[in-house]
Amino acid sequence: MAKKSNVNNEDLEKIVSFAKRKGFVFPSSDIYGGLAGFYDFGPLGVAMKNNIKKSWWKKMVQTRNDVVGLDSAIIMNPRVWEASLHTENFTDPLAECKECHKRFRADHLEDQSQCPECKGELIPPRQFNLMLKTFIGPVEDEASRAYLRPETAQGIFINYKNIIDTQRVKIPFGIAQIGKSFRNEITPGNFIFRTREFEQMEMEYFVKPGEDEKAFDYWVEERMKWYLEDLGIRKEKLRIRKHEKKELAHYAKTCVDVEYDFPGMGWAEIEGIASRTDFDLRQHQKFSGQDLSYYNNETKEKFLPFVIEPSAGVERAMLALLCDAYQEIEGGRTQTTEQTKETEILLKLNKKIAPIQIAVLPLVKNKEEIREKAESIYCLLKNYFFCQYDEAGTIGRRYRRQDESGTPFALTVDFDTLKTEDVTVRDRDTMEQERIKIDKLVEYFKNKFEND
Amino acid sequence: MAKKSNVNNEDLEKIVSFAKRKGFVFPSSDIYGGLAGFYDFGPLGVAMKNNIKKSWWKKMVQTRNDVVGLDSAIIMNPRVWEASLHTENFTDPLAECKECHKRFRADHLEDQSQCPECKGELIPPRQFNLMLKTFIGPVEDEASRAYLRPETAQGIFINYKNIIDTQRVKIPFGIAQIGKSFRNEITPGNFIFRTREFEQMEMEYFVKPGEDEKAFDYWVEERMKWYLEDLGIRKEKLRIRKHEKKELAHYAKTCVDVEYDFPGMGWAEIEGIASRTDFDLRQHQKFSGQDLSYYNNETKEKFLPFVIEPSAGVERAMLALLCDAYQEIEGGRTQTTEQTKETEILLKLNKKIAPIQIAVLPLVKNKEEIREKAESIYCLLKNYFFCQYDEAGTIGRRYRRQDESGTPFALTVDFDTLKTEDVTVRDRDTMEQERIKIDKLVEYFKNKFEND
Repeated sequence: MAKKSNVNNEDLEKIVSFAKRKGFVFPSSDIYGGLAGFYDFGPLGVAMKNNIKKSWWKKMVQTRNDVVGLDSAIIMNPRVWEASLHTENFTDPLAECKECHKRFRADHLEDQSQCPECKGELIPPRQFNLMLKTFIGPVEDEASRAYLRPETAQGIFINYKNIIDTQRVKIPFGIAQIGKSFRNEITPGNFIFRTREFEQMEMEYFVKPGEDEKAFDYWVEERMKWYLEDLGIRKEKLRIRKHEKKELAHYAKTCVDVEYDFPGMGWAEIEGIASRTDFDLRQHQKFSGQDLSYYNNETKEKFLPFVIEPSAGVERAMLALLCDAYQEIEGGRTQTTEQTKETEILLKLNKKIAPIQIAVLPLVKNKEEIREKAESIYCLLKNYFFCQYDEAGTIGRRYRRQDESGTPFALTVDFDTLKTEDVTVRDRDTMEQERIKIDKLVEYFKNKFEND
Repeated sequence: MAKKSNVNNEDLEKIVSFAKRKGFVFPSSDIYGGLAGFYDFGPLGVAMKNNIKKSWWKKMVQTRNDVVGLDSAIIMNPRVWEASLHTENFTDPLAECKECHKRFRADHLEDQSQCPECKGELIPPRQFNLMLKTFIGPVEDEASRAYLRPETAQGIFINYKNIIDTQRVKIPFGIAQIGKSFRNEITPGNFIFRTREFEQMEMEYFVKPGEDEKAFDYWVEERMKWYLEDLGIRKEKLRIRKHEKKELAHYAKTCVDVEYDFPGMGWAEIEGIASRTDFDLRQHQKFSGQDLSYYNNETKEKFLPFVIEPSAGVERAMLALLCDAYQEIEGGRTQTTEQTKETEILLKLNKKIAPIQIAVLPLVKNKEEIREKAESIYCLLKNYFFCQYDEAGTIGRRYRRQDESGTPFALTVDFDTLKTEDVTVRDRDTMEQERIKIDKLVEYFKNKFEND
C-alpha cells in the first residue's frame, strides 16, 4: 500500500503553490507583482467557488420555505454604518515601529512595546477603521463619502422592512445573501484565509424574543451538518468553539465559531454563528426613523425580532476543502511494476464540489474515429455536466492530471468503443473501472451526481 | 378575448413600481432614502439574476471546450489602470451650472451653454474620471490609492499569462467572467439601466491576428442567439447597431451594440461586442515588462493575440426580460362570467429564467390532510426545483399572484388528491390544467424544465 499523507503537519505553502499550478487561485494582478490581500480565482477555482455557493444556497434558501434570498449593493448609504456602529467601532489596534515603520495589529503582538521585526520601539497603538472608503459623485468631500461594506449582514437588515412588506413572510424567517465584502486588514495573510476582498454567505434569521436561544442551537447544528454532510469535510478536522465573554462583538449575546484545523495555522474560524439580539434592527429603527417592528396578525403581538446569524466565508470554506482533500501518495497510486514512481497528488474533493465533473479522454489522439467518438460524447455530456475534453499525453498521465484536479470520473474512449458502443469510466477514489454503454451515460452520471 | 398590452408605449415607471412591489428590485438603502445609482435585488430579483448568470455561464463556459472561467478581484494593482489607459481616458465631460450647481453630462446636453433645469450659465465642461477610488492599507496617500474596477475585462487580460501557463489552452480560446463593476456615473438613471454598481458578464476571445474579423462576426451571431433562444426575448425588440467611427473607444477596431427597445427609453445597449485588437495585451506587456505573446508549438509561430469581447450587463438583460415579459390584461385573464374584473398582470418570463419554478398550493388551508399532502409534495419537489408553498387566499388569487411572479407552473392539491394521488398542474401561459400522479411529478417537471 502506498504511503498517503495529508498536509496536516506541513506548511500551507504546499497548498498555495498547488492552487496556483492547477489554476485554482492566482495572486491578484500577478504580472504587476500582486496586491497584498487580494487573490484571483482561475478556471478550477471559480468552478469550485460556484459549487460551494450553490450548495449553501440550496441548503439555506432553495430547500427552506422559511428563508428568502437577497442581493444588496456593496455600497450603501453611509448612514447604515453609523447606525450599525461600524464607523465608530469597526477597528483594529494599529501599532507602528518608530525605526522600520512596519505596521502590525497590536492585539496580535505578544510584546506591544518592541517591533517583532527589528526590535525597534513601537508607537502606542491607535484604533484603525477597517472599512474601505470611497466617494460617490463628482466631489470628494464628507457629504459624498461612502464605504465598501465590511459585511453583507447590514444589507439584509436595511432590507428587512421591504421584505416583510412584500414577501408574505412570517416569523420565524430568514433572509440570506451571498456577496463580496471588503476589509482593510492591517495584516492580511495565510493565503486566502485573511484577505481584503472576500465573499460571504450570510443569513439573518428573525425570531420572537425569547425563542432566540433555541434557534441559536438549531442553527449551530444545521451549519455543522452542512460542512460534514454537504461539503464532506472530515469530522476530526472540525470543531465548535464558543466565544468567551470578552471576545464578543458589541452586538452579540452569544457567538460560536466553526473552526477547521488548517495545516500550518491550526484551528481557525471558517464560520461564525452569532446571536445578535435586536441590536441591529433597533439601531436602524432609531437612525432611519422607520418602524421596524413585526406585527403578528394572528396573535396581535408587535415586537422587534431577535436575530440569529450564521456567517460563512466562501474562500475559507474553499481553503478548508482544498486542505481536507489534498493527498500526496509516495511512489504513485498504482504500483504494479517495480519501477520507482514519483509522488502523485490526489485531490479527493466531494463530487458536488469538484470543479470538473467528468473528463472525456480519447485513448489515443492519432486515430480519427476515436477522437470523433470522444468529441461526440463530450458534446453530449457537456449539456448536463461540467466536462473537460483532454487528448494530450499518455492515458496514465491524463488520469493523474484529473486526479490532481479532483475530477471524480474519467471516461475513456478506446478501440473497443468503436465496436461495442461502450466506454470505460474510472472512479477517482477507487480507481475501479466500469464499462458503460454510451446511450446510458447521461443517466449513469445523473445518478452519480444526484444531479437533479 | 381580453385586451393584452405590453408596456412598450408606456413609461418605465410601471416596471419600477411592479419590480419593487413583487420583490424583484428595491431602491438601495431604502429606509435611509436610498442612494442614487444603487439598487438591491429582492427574493425574486436575486433568483432571476442567478438564472441569467447561470444561462450565460452554461452557454459561454460549460458547453464550450475553448472557453475557461475566471473570477478576478474587484480591486487590482493600480498599474493595471495606467496600462489600460483608464486613469487617463475613462472620463465623461462634466458640466456644472453656475446658478443652481446641478451637474450634467455635457455630451448629453443639446445646448452646452445653458442649464437645462434653471437656464443658468454652465461652467465649461471638464473631464471627470469615472473610476471609484479607495485606499489600501493604513495610510491614505498616492502610494496606497486603488480603484474599484470599472470593467471586468482587465481582470481577464492580467490573468491571460497565468491561464496560458497553467490551463493547456490553444488559440483560439476565451476567458470568461461574471462580476461586479463600478462607475461613478455623473447622471445614473433609467432604473437599473445606468447604475453606479452593476454586474457584467464578459468574455475575451483570443485569436490569431487576421482571424479577428471572422471571429467578430461569429460572436455577434452567437450572442444574438443567446438573447433570442436562451432568454427568449422577442425578435422585434432586439437589434444590432454598428458603432460609427467617432463612437469607437480608444481600444476598438470595430464595435456593435445589441440593443433592446425599452419602454420610455427606446433603443438602448444591453451588450457591446468589440474587436479590441492586441491593444490591451500590448499595453500590459509594456507596463508589466512580461512577455505576453502566445507561442504555437505546432507551427512555431509567436504572436500577440487579437481579442474579441462580448460584454453584457446582468441588470440590463434583467430589465429587458422584465419589460419583454410584462403584460397587463384588462378585465382579467378568465372571463367566464359577466362581472367586470380588474386588470391582471402576467409576467411571461422564459421558464429557465423565472425565479419560482413551481408553486405548490393546497386548495384550502383549513383541511389538515390537504395541507399535509401539499407540504409533503413541496418537500419532495424543493430538492430539485425552486418552489414556493403558498396557502394564503383563494386559489384564484394565488394563481394571479404566481402569474405576476412569472411562475410557469402552479400545482394544486385538492380533495380528489387524497383519493387519487394526483394533483392539478396549471400552465401559466395557456392556463390549461393537467392531472399528474404525485409519483410522476419529479419526472414531469424535469422534462418541462429540461433540468438536466
